[in-house]
Amino acid sequence: MVDLALLGCGGGMPIPERYLSSLLISYKGRKILMDCGEGTQVSMKILGWGFKSIDVICLTHGHADHIVGLPGLLLTIGNSGRTLPITIIGPIGITAIVKGLMVIAPYLPYEINILENPQEPVKIKAPLNATETTVGEFNDLIISTLELEHSTNCLGYSLYFNRKPKFDVKSAIENEIPKEFWNRLQKNEVIMDHGKTYFPKLVFGAERVGIKISFITDTRPISKIKAFINGSDLFVCEGTYGDENDIEKAIRNKHMTFSEAAKLAVGGEVQELLLTHFSPSMLSPEEYKDRSEVIFKNTIIGTDRKIRTLSFKD
Amino acid sequence: MVDLALLGCGGGMPIPERYLSSLLISYKGRKILMDCGEGTQVSMKILGWGFKSIDVICLTHGHADHIVGLPGLLLTIGNSGRTLPITIIGPIGITAIVKGLMVIAPYLPYEINILENPQEPVKIKAPLNATETTVGEFNDLIISTLELEHSTNCLGYSLYFNRKPKFDVKSAIENEIPKEFWNRLQKNEVIMDHGKTYFPKLVFGAERVGIKISFITDTRPISKIKAFINGSDLFVCEGTYGDENDIEKAIRNKHMTFSEAAKLAVGGEVQELLLTHFSPSMLSPEEYKDRSEVIFKNTIIGTDRKIRTLSFKD
Repeated sequence: MVDLALLGCGGGMPIPERYLSSLLISYKGRKILMDCGEGTQVSMKILGWGFKSIDVICLTHGHADHIVGLPGLLLTIGNSGRTLPITIIGPIGITAIVKGLMVIAPYLPYEINILENPQEPVKIKAPLNATETTVGEFNDLIISTLELEHSTNCLGYSLYFNRKPKFDVKSAIENEIPKEFWNRLQKNEVIMDHGKTYFPKLVFGAERVGIKISFITDTRPISKIKAFINGSDLFVCEGTYGDENDIEKAIRNKHMTFSEAAKLAVGGEVQELLLTHFSPSMLSPEEYKDRSEVIFKNTIIGTDRKIRTLSFKD
Repeated sequence: MVDLALLGCGGGMPIPERYLSSLLISYKGRKILMDCGEGTQVSMKILGWGFKSIDVICLTHGHADHIVGLPGLLLTIGNSGRTLPITIIGPIGITAIVKGLMVIAPYLPYEINILENPQEPVKIKAPLNATETTVGEFNDLIISTLELEHSTNCLGYSLYFNRKPKFDVKSAIENEIPKEFWNRLQKNEVIMDHGKTYFPKLVFGAERVGIKISFITDTRPISKIKAFINGSDLFVCEGTYGDENDIEKAIRNKHMTFSEAAKLAVGGEVQELLLTHFSPSMLSPEEYKDRSEVIFKNTIIGTDRKIRTLSFKD
């Protein structure tokens, strides 16, 4: 089961009741934060899910409305007693940007590891702060990135929460695994004993379907997004403009309209579309919901602290 | 008349209903911002006083809870159509900090002039963006700074809003000012004509009392604060802790309790004390109001968007 909360659904500048781009995802008691606009930590405080367990922060790009909350949040995480490292993922240039911002948060009680524009999917084992993985181990989360088309380097993200297969007694016996290790292997531990290495996969049965969440903002609706988000249980996508008459603004500012996001949802064969990153000039995004629904029925209009819970299928 | 609004009364981290350190001052349609913690622009938006007319930003220090809102606010000011320069004043190191933060707001449609730890009072003529002044001119605002005792370089501020004297016909005649210039001189214009320079002061009568506002955060209650804030109409002061039992925390973290702030108010012979910068652990600062009132009666407990209007005495 994966829980997520849209912490802020605004783009550009915050307005009352609408903080800036941020999404919090909770899985097995650990958390991943997508973007960190102004108001992120206020929204988190209202939500009450806690600060200490944020292991990974994925930043789409370095525009202020997606990142300005970062130094304050990192300090608050530090005050929560965290000492485990945090992994920050972002596009080309993110290292310089994060280091620039850290001028006002120079001392943190934990390390920060920055992965700038990773060329391979980032495979993560729970607890989610460990980004190194070993062949044969089971990865709880796989984070993939896609370069988007915005006015600066910008990454889209897909998060695949792997479903651990059921325990396979037959496989455990065939692979001659000592019974005393079965439980630890099922818990995803790699065991070394008398020169032999036992990987969790040796006791796992057939693969089961995981949960996929995609997060696409800010960008024009480039065609490669469809394959990237394919099959997502939830597709969180920018809908900066609801009104189709704003299409020229969307093109000029490298954003999308609701209907453009809906067309991606159709092409990507996703289950649900959660629209976010609304222009401050659009006071009631709900008014334009039908613009998306006529193209893709399962449209949700984001609001601050809108919560979704996604369940594994089997 | 000077209007001011406490935009955020929190210290450390923002909590619901309490944004971080920020105070907005409005005078003759122009604005001065003191500190710019997270939530500043949200609070400004709720307040509705506008963004374009902020001419001066005074930063106490570079801790995140006092400055993190700056890049987002500067971008929003840019979007409001401002092209006039903005003056930023701050302690030693502020240039590097502001430049670090500007990595996420690299393009602004106006210039920023940074005055780092000015050793002389900054004299400002309305519109308040002009920081250069000429001897003999009337200054609308004089900003003085005081080095405080915090865990980093930190400045306290006093703002003196000068009251323009009444027009003095006798003085104008005695100084042989052509009548055609009287009105422009009264409006604080310096006039050059046929090799002669006419300063506004030549037509001004006796001096009148201005309005003084002091802003002191974050610091221990060092004794030189008393002379610095002397005679303030409003003394805005940090009261991080209400409970006297927190005095050790106050000493360790270089902050103040309510009673320490109240003693400064008495020593500085101020008219009113507005307490702000409350620790997030103190949920109801109002509960501790009596700790200040027994020492200094005119105590106000800050809340976000608390507004005060100060009038000239004559």
